[in-house]
Amino acid sequence: MILLKFKPIGVIHTPHTGPKGTPIQSIGARDIKGTIELNPEYVDGLQDLDGFSHIILLYVFHKARAYSLKVLPYLETEKRGLFATRYPARPNPIGLSVARLDSIEGNVLHILDVDMLDGTPLLDIKPFIPDADN
Amino acid sequence: MILLKFKPIGVIHTPHTGPKGTPIQSIGARDIKGTIELNPEYVDGLQDLDGFSHIILLYVFHKARAYSLKVLPYLETEKRGLFATRYPARPNPIGLSVARLDSIEGNVLHILDVDMLDGTPLLDIKPFIPDADN
Repeated sequence: MILLKFKPIGVIHTPHTGPKGTPIQSIGARDIKGTIELNPEYVDGLQDLDGFSHIILLYVFHKARAYSLKVLPYLETEKRGLFATRYPARPNPIGLSVARLDSIEGNVLHILDVDMLDGTPLLDIKPFIPDADN
Repeated sequence: MILLKFKPIGVIHTPHTGPKGTPIQSIGARDIKGTIELNPEYVDGLQDLDGFSHIILLYVFHKARAYSLKVLPYLETEKRGLFATRYPARPNPIGLSVARLDSIEGNVLHILDVDMLDGTPLLDIKPFIPDADN
């Protein structure tokens, strides 16, 4: 078994302190403000990012429990295959959200439309490129 | 330092055997066919996925070398901040692509618009949900 090792590059701060009230995907997250605190060692990698209106965040579902391959999605009555859902408990609990980028100050990014829990460990920031991601 | 451990859940087969000729993002990958060979233990998680036309693949840039925080993007003449690019060499070399789902046979998914290298380790499959991801 190959084990892959990753490490957080920062932390995402949001108003969502528990699963209750946290929006399901960014649909319910519109205009909710959050900040990304990037570890200072990575700040040079932010250059030019302010040219993008939206950014893709990859992060860890750090509160997810053990996964099941069949899950009951929010507002549904029948179980579905896990990979047909965005459920946080997954074999590799990696979350993906598209956020609006408001501004960057040093190692802090001010973002909008946040749907992840406060304290979420950040794995990566990528520019959202409509031709590739739509 | 927190280390996060992930393991591949399958492998992605594509016609792209080396960086030369491999499309830059899915823009140049239109109609190129690939397959995902999911490890059989996860096959129950595929139920209902065939209701989606597009899927999000998270995978490892397994051929990426050590990263730099400033990189020269394809077809450009000035270096940019790494997080403003989709460059594969990153602190956490996790790739993200949206592929078209053609069909599912057992643990094999036939996909289109593939832009990753043959043999790429798969980390996750998520349904593409236009309201959340656009």
